[in-house]
Amino acid sequence: MINFFKYNWQVRDEWFDWCNLLTPKELIKDRIGGVGNILYTLFHIIDVEYSWIRGIQGKEDIIFQFADYNTPEKVKSLSDTFRNEIVVSLKTILEESKDKLVNVSWDENEYTKDEILHHIIAHEIHHIGQLSVWARELDLSPVPANFIGRKLKSVQSY
Amino acid sequence: MINFFKYNWQVRDEWFDWCNLLTPKELIKDRIGGVGNILYTLFHIIDVEYSWIRGIQGKEDIIFQFADYNTPEKVKSLSDTFRNEIVVSLKTILEESKDKLVNVSWDENEYTKDEILHHIIAHEIHHIGQLSVWARELDLSPVPANFIGRKLKSVQSY
Repeated sequence: MINFFKYNWQVRDEWFDWCNLLTPKELIKDRIGGVGNILYTLFHIIDVEYSWIRGIQGKEDIIFQFADYNTPEKVKSLSDTFRNEIVVSLKTILEESKDKLVNVSWDENEYTKDEILHHIIAHEIHHIGQLSVWARELDLSPVPANFIGRKLKSVQSY
Repeated sequence: MINFFKYNWQVRDEWFDWCNLLTPKELIKDRIGGVGNILYTLFHIIDVEYSWIRGIQGKEDIIFQFADYNTPEKVKSLSDTFRNEIVVSLKTILEESKDKLVNVSWDENEYTKDEILHHIIAHEIHHIGQLSVWARELDLSPVPANFIGRKLKSVQSY
């Protein structure tokens, strides 16, 4: 699991760098599919990861509005803040029982910790796949998505 | 790891069903991004998974040409055939050392078994994300990508 987090976090940061290729207007321009624009996709990935991690920890959900984070710098800063917080507890979270049941405020169903960790990981990779199509539609190369051949930074390096 | 395989295989089969919504022409029509068309994306996912699994097993790569499998029925049949073969060895593969080094004919670098399994999983989820954008561009709902709330079938059920 931890290696998928390392992969997602690294790819995410490369997408933040990639955002510098676009104007602020292009980053929030309506696009077909996914959650509808590039910057909101990154915000959404971060928001979903943080909410589910807090859910696993039995913490209350905090609502963040995209309107308050509508520049790449603000979304990146939010990502860094959440990540620093997640890093501190990730080892404990991963060591807990896979079958620990989790209830969250935004979903009436109960899930295991293991299902939620899989969900967070697949959720980010799926949305990044969407960004890659939008990048090509903008005539730009997307961030490479390969898992192999990537030197993964330790989570503590964040 | 096994649950990501279950997830990917289930989502993949749902995309094969989804393909019935489109004409054969739409399925192989050139699109921007990814590997360029819907059916070839599914073929490519299957081909890459099978090649790497054979690589882990120290088996020689077999080259398949998309031209020989250019209908959804043929790609689905190839997917089923490969999967039946993979299911037989997956348990053994997963039980082997994570750090086992693997060399393959199409890549000069050496990777661990663990890296390759992560690669296969992320590769499929990423390309499925691309299909989801193309689906919306066709004014169709994509196959849901949620990991949670999904009853995963055992790999032996294939």
